[in-house]
Amino acid sequence: MPHVREGALHRLFHPRSVAFYGASSDPRKIGGRPLDFIKSTHFDGALYPINPQYQEVQGLKAYPTAEAIEGPVDMAIVAVPAPHVLAALEDCARKKVGGAVVLSAGFAEVGGQGLEWQRQITELARRTGMRVVGPNCMGSINVRRGLLGTFTPSAAGFGLVPGRISLVSQSGAFGGYCLSLIRQRGIGLNLWVTTGNQSDVDFADCVRFYADDEETDVIVGYVEAVTDKQRLVEALTLARERGKRIVMMKVGSSEAGAHAAASHTASLAGSDQVYDGLFRQYGVYRARTIDELFDVAYACSLARKPPQGNRLGLLTVSGGVGALMADAAADHGMDVAPMPDEAQRRLKAIVPFAGPRNPVDMTAQLVNDVTLFEKNFNIMLEEGGYDIVVAFLSSVGQVPALSDELLQQLKKVLARFADRTIIISMLATPEVRKLYEAAGVMVFDEPTRAVRAASALVRFARESARAEAADAPPPLPAGALPAPTKALNEVEAKTVLASAGIPVVREVLAATEDAAAKAAAQLGYPVALKIASVDIPHKSEVGGVLLALADETQLREGWRTLMKRVAERAPGARLDGAVVAPMVKRGVETIIGVNRDPVFGPVVMFGLGGVFVEAFKDVAFRVAPIGVAQARAMIDEVRGRVLLTGLRGQPPADEIALAEAIARVSVFAARNAEHIDSIDINPFVVLPAGEGGVALDALIVPRHH
Amino acid sequence: MPHVREGALHRLFHPRSVAFYGASSDPRKIGGRPLDFIKSTHFDGALYPINPQYQEVQGLKAYPTAEAIEGPVDMAIVAVPAPHVLAALEDCARKKVGGAVVLSAGFAEVGGQGLEWQRQITELARRTGMRVVGPNCMGSINVRRGLLGTFTPSAAGFGLVPGRISLVSQSGAFGGYCLSLIRQRGIGLNLWVTTGNQSDVDFADCVRFYADDEETDVIVGYVEAVTDKQRLVEALTLARERGKRIVMMKVGSSEAGAHAAASHTASLAGSDQVYDGLFRQYGVYRARTIDELFDVAYACSLARKPPQGNRLGLLTVSGGVGALMADAAADHGMDVAPMPDEAQRRLKAIVPFAGPRNPVDMTAQLVNDVTLFEKNFNIMLEEGGYDIVVAFLSSVGQVPALSDELLQQLKKVLARFADRTIIISMLATPEVRKLYEAAGVMVFDEPTRAVRAASALVRFARESARAEAADAPPPLPAGALPAPTKALNEVEAKTVLASAGIPVVREVLAATEDAAAKAAAQLGYPVALKIASVDIPHKSEVGGVLLALADETQLREGWRTLMKRVAERAPGARLDGAVVAPMVKRGVETIIGVNRDPVFGPVVMFGLGGVFVEAFKDVAFRVAPIGVAQARAMIDEVRGRVLLTGLRGQPPADEIALAEAIARVSVFAARNAEHIDSIDINPFVVLPAGEGGVALDALIVPRHH
Repeated sequence: MPHVREGALHRLFHPRSVAFYGASSDPRKIGGRPLDFIKSTHFDGALYPINPQYQEVQGLKAYPTAEAIEGPVDMAIVAVPAPHVLAALEDCARKKVGGAVVLSAGFAEVGGQGLEWQRQITELARRTGMRVVGPNCMGSINVRRGLLGTFTPSAAGFGLVPGRISLVSQSGAFGGYCLSLIRQRGIGLNLWVTTGNQSDVDFADCVRFYADDEETDVIVGYVEAVTDKQRLVEALTLARERGKRIVMMKVGSSEAGAHAAASHTASLAGSDQVYDGLFRQYGVYRARTIDELFDVAYACSLARKPPQGNRLGLLTVSGGVGALMADAAADHGMDVAPMPDEAQRRLKAIVPFAGPRNPVDMTAQLVNDVTLFEKNFNIMLEEGGYDIVVAFLSSVGQVPALSDELLQQLKKVLARFADRTIIISMLATPEVRKLYEAAGVMVFDEPTRAVRAASALVRFARESARAEAADAPPPLPAGALPAPTKALNEVEAKTVLASAGIPVVREVLAATEDAAAKAAAQLGYPVALKIASVDIPHKSEVGGVLLALADETQLREGWRTLMKRVAERAPGARLDGAVVAPMVKRGVETIIGVNRDPVFGPVVMFGLGGVFVEAFKDVAFRVAPIGVAQARAMIDEVRGRVLLTGLRGQPPADEIALAEAIARVSVFAARNAEHIDSIDINPFVVLPAGEGGVALDALIVPRHH
Repeated sequence: MPHVREGALHRLFHPRSVAFYGASSDPRKIGGRPLDFIKSTHFDGALYPINPQYQEVQGLKAYPTAEAIEGPVDMAIVAVPAPHVLAALEDCARKKVGGAVVLSAGFAEVGGQGLEWQRQITELARRTGMRVVGPNCMGSINVRRGLLGTFTPSAAGFGLVPGRISLVSQSGAFGGYCLSLIRQRGIGLNLWVTTGNQSDVDFADCVRFYADDEETDVIVGYVEAVTDKQRLVEALTLARERGKRIVMMKVGSSEAGAHAAASHTASLAGSDQVYDGLFRQYGVYRARTIDELFDVAYACSLARKPPQGNRLGLLTVSGGVGALMADAAADHGMDVAPMPDEAQRRLKAIVPFAGPRNPVDMTAQLVNDVTLFEKNFNIMLEEGGYDIVVAFLSSVGQVPALSDELLQQLKKVLARFADRTIIISMLATPEVRKLYEAAGVMVFDEPTRAVRAASALVRFARESARAEAADAPPPLPAGALPAPTKALNEVEAKTVLASAGIPVVREVLAATEDAAAKAAAQLGYPVALKIASVDIPHKSEVGGVLLALADETQLREGWRTLMKRVAERAPGARLDGAVVAPMVKRGVETIIGVNRDPVFGPVVMFGLGGVFVEAFKDVAFRVAPIGVAQARAMIDEVRGRVLLTGLRGQPPADEIALAEAIARVSVFAARNAEHIDSIDINPFVVLPAGEGGVALDALIVPRHH
């Protein structure tokens, strides 16, 4: 009954009535705090303390059970000791409460009986359809309603302003810190929840709920470990369809960080690089610092139409800061295109000593002639055609009269250029900042952070466009072979991959020297000769590969050499003979791989060959299957991509064929997810544009059940 | 008279009396603003408005000229129109004023007559010994004295707190913005100056003055273009000797940024990468954002003893933020070493559910038992032995009573571990922050910024240690040949480099086929054969290199092939014959180069061979000459360095020999600075450790006078 359960979550986040289990008269106690907090806000729903020992708690009539309450109860906050939580939840369920937030600790995180209690909570939620957040969580908040269903000290005194950002955190402490930060920065917030032990409602549920929430434009997530790939992917997909922006923090990219995150959550986290790939795949912006998390979320919450492109105009009152912003823009891949010559002449006529190129430097002249602001904006947007303009105004925001004058001009500019994005960087008083934000203008103290926000908006716009363009994984060809259930030799592996539409080198498995000579004559010299044995997955380690054999004499000599080496170096190996393959002409060597992630299943990997993968870990990941557009995005992500663009007078490589091969490998891996442990195509040689690519060697490791 | 001039700067920065040329009664005018500003501070020196039209200005007795003033005048602030500036300065000079700050614009930045006036200011300063800051600048500030010699609105109302950071900015607008930011963040400031058109006092002068200033520990610099390398290097060297930390912002790393910076300053900037190398060379921390600039400066201004190493302990109330800090630490190259097992057991005994490894997670238990703080710190510092501990306390700093309790514990910890560095990350009220800072504890809002500050302190400590270790450039060998004055062939170039102590391949220039065969027999086959002609600097472009010739037959065939190719492809080239060289066994190919920077002269460059230099611009620069330690630092800087460490079972390469070669190239280039345009040693092959390295090919381009 998914619909009922969704409706239940709605009642939990938007309750008209709240019951407080374990409500205490002492507002310092965890049981007393939510009631104390909520009484200080504008929450206008009914409040029902539940405590059989008292007639009244904090001035409100207390009830022995929820069943004793006359009206309906949408939400319950449970702060009784762990042994009594289940009874409270059963009481809730009988009362047909929508959802309960269990603040109490002492469950899975302590093991033993706690584990069993938590299992029972899960079972109750599944059985009754009542949703349960927690246990061992910090609770939830609905800012517009004034609902503070939490005991975090960060919520004391409320102090939150409504906005279009909703936050979900797997960590209570992290969620509490973010709440304090949001208050300090005056960022608008809508919903806030921490998921604790996730006995029922988990991270993916919350993302999904926010995706459907009309007051939410931006979802901020803090995730430590995902347990159900499918539901997370569905939630991310829905959010993207609904046009929501997701900004996520995921810790554990370093060894020490991963260790800390794992011991902290006691659950299996997938590889950090796989999360990275997943986020890119679903258009999620991954922030690396808390500043970045909220800068980007703030920008998204105030952004107007998505920018059409990445042309960035920079307007400044300081030439130095203009150059600084240009440097930052280049680091973020933005296009700081110069103004057209004629427009530069016009700008120069307005401020003679100004830099008119881009950055456009108004100099301190702005203070003497405030109309410069609108004039410059108009010329930049009209003639420069920038998708985004970041304007640096130093500390103008500390001078209310001047700020207001500029804001009036800005409003005219915004009305005239409705499809452009404008970002202001200045030091401002909280009051000035609020006025700008009310007009839909975001304000950043620090100019490089304003530029980073601009680039994030461009990235979201690009990801949306990518998502809208149909990027279905290519179909598996009709005659595709199934994945092997036992170890394969190289030729067999390539035959399977070829059947799945991946181009492989033409080659022949020869059982005898004569058969090899015959095959070589057919393929045409020069050829390569490679030992074929399921017991020798890494052929070059036993000297099992000979290249560029020029004629029959060399081929026959080579055959004998190989057989002798194998007899000496791998005496027990089962031998299928040797593979004869034509020498492939020079292209760019790449690696396409598949690994099985414990959480996300088959994951496709791409990198340049040679030292790039090994030494620089310069690789991109995606959760299989993917379409060709995602595969191209993977290629774009690796630094070594420059090798495919045609260095040293080489022709550019066939990136289209490469992307197709990556996508097809991902489709094959996803279809055979249960049977494949890993695939390693190394090298996949990418030929010049139009000539395709070819897998020279391949290894498929089946999954042992 | 350098001593007099230094004394004059002292009088300018620490004046007991100030004259105001162009002093106006209207505090909104540039001429009225400094006087108005300074009257609002605690400045206790004499103030002399100079304006022949009035008896009194802003309530103070006005003078027609400085000469009319009874007592001495240390400093003058000049805000008269450009045509009258020189007369004002001449009046100053007659009065023996120490230094003048010229706020007026209309000089070199507008060209024409302005240029000539500025030249005359320079001449006056040189002639009289009076120092002149500006013209076209924002002025100067001495916070302790309450001296506001500026018209920037950012100084209105003072609002500055004394500290140990002094700032010098080549940009007035940037300097003004920084001032506002410093006020907003409550960072302690000592001296502040903007250098404007630098007619006399320039950026290097100010760095030098700050280096000697006893109230300055940290120098923050904003630089756009340096004109005199030698004086800057002297200033940086002096600052380092005095133990000052320098944090610098230099814009123009991107093309658009460089263009903006150049047009803005109208002076020749050296290559951005060269600045980068120079900063590293002199232990200057280059900040990439304004946040970073002031975070690092702030950290340095409050730091105690330099950390002994880079072992970082992380203490946290949030497991998630602990992991986040660990990730950030790894990105910054810090060592997040785990606690010893026994210590982990002890920590676990104190907080049962805590993460005891590192990060050490106190959890929210800290709120219930504040003594956990000191206990955890003691165990981490004593048994973990960390050089630095960053402690994340969420929003504890917003709860004054709890903050104070923790601070008292912290003071005991600081007293006990005087050689360790402690950094706190928490959201705090300004009052709490001030209490912590007064106790010498730095506080950062954002945990990853606290970690970055920690890594900056480690870097400064390492740079100091490097500077203290004598790292003299190696001497040029006695028999070193002079740089060529004409183009050289490859063998001649290598002969010159060999004489300078750089190992080159043994090779023989053969004028005839027979001579080549004889040389090959002596060197031993296989050999390489390369065309030798001053007219063919890039031999491989004409097919002028043959490798691995195995015997005399192949050598003689090769000779004829080469001669035929050259006759066809470079018919006019003067030919010296061909070079016979032994094939060098496999090592790692690197590139050592020298270029001439317009500002910094000969600059040595290092990178890995192949695509690393070309495609990834993965190179390190230093201003020549350098010692071996600096050369090793260059090697450490390039990402491709991993190739030297021994990949795929290869032995590690001889980095010592490589560093020596780089240093020797730099010494040769510096000694012959006037005669060399560029040097390109490509490849310099680095052999396995202990076996040295060898230049296989080299090109020296002489400078044409």
